[in-house]
Amino acid sequence: MDRLGMEVAYANAKKSYDEGGVPIGAALVYHGGDGEPRVVGEGHNARVQKNSPILHGETAALENAGRLKPDVYRNSTMYTTLSPCSMCAGAILLYKIPRVVIGENVNFVGEEELLRSRGVEVVVLNDEECKALMAQYIREKPEDWYEDIGEKIRKD
Amino acid sequence: MDRLGMEVAYANAKKSYDEGGVPIGAALVYHGGDGEPRVVGEGHNARVQKNSPILHGETAALENAGRLKPDVYRNSTMYTTLSPCSMCAGAILLYKIPRVVIGENVNFVGEEELLRSRGVEVVVLNDEECKALMAQYIREKPEDWYEDIGEKIRKD
Ligand SMILES: [Ca+2]
Ligand SMILES: [Ca+2]
Ligand SMILES: [Zn+2]
Ligand SMILES: [Zn+2]
Repeated sequence: MDRLGMEVAYANAKKSYDEGGVPIGAALVYHGGDGEPRVVGEGHNARVQKNSPILHGETAALENAGRLKPDVYRNSTMYTTLSPCSMCAGAILLYKIPRVVIGENVNFVGEEELLRSRGVEVVVLNDEECKALMAQYIREKPEDWYEDIGEKIRKD
Repeated sequence: MDRLGMEVAYANAKKSYDEGGVPIGAALVYHGGDGEPRVVGEGHNARVQKNSPILHGETAALENAGRLKPDVYRNSTMYTTLSPCSMCAGAILLYKIPRVVIGENVNFVGEEELLRSRGVEVVVLNDEECKALMAQYIREKPEDWYEDIGEKIRKD
């Protein structure tokens, strides 16, 4: 059931990588109502492409979705290729998105425990493609990556 | 010492109100280095003006500042007219902004405790102008306000 969302999230991450940007993508999938689940928002990190410190994968997907009614968020799942940082976890909590599916949390461990402590279902897929893409990027452009998570670059 | 930042934050909130938008403003003030403190980013909620669910006061100020080095955030204070929601608190944590000055927390109580638990200094000014502007807006446009915090409108 999680294939659609993660495929869209990964496609966005790959697009960002191909543009020279941070390869993290996300998709918001609505599964309320009577129809099939459908993507209501998708996006990718745009630190490089738009000079933006707030467009991460998840926030970009929310921005792409536009203004939604509370019930849409409450019947949706957020898919993201990488474990969500505090800002993106906070956005998930703000809109009471009940479920988050994470491609991988090897390259970065975000606020999974905070999400769980607030009742959000968190699923980690440990996806090989997500892991490989992010690892490659961190090797290639560590400065941009550390800037993205507010860290000074590690010299080790 | 907090006058500059809160004046800029309030001016942004008032501008948003005058445009028909959610009247929450913010300013990021850098106080590192040898010079006087200076505003490096400012903005206001743009749910109405830009159809955006992620441009709150604080995130708009971060976006306006653009890409900053980790040390700039770590020597800055975030000023916001209203207690920060989980997304904005998460953004403050992401960039390790060490201090947050809040105009008021009567109309909305955000994630002040989470911020404090992570070592952020949180100051609440209980500012009369901030309180009055927000209260007026909530009376006038409750639907937009509750949407902004992911809540269903309260019928009481
Ligand atoms: Ca259904
Ligand atoms: Ca100084
Ligand atoms: Zn994030
Ligand atoms: Zn906020």
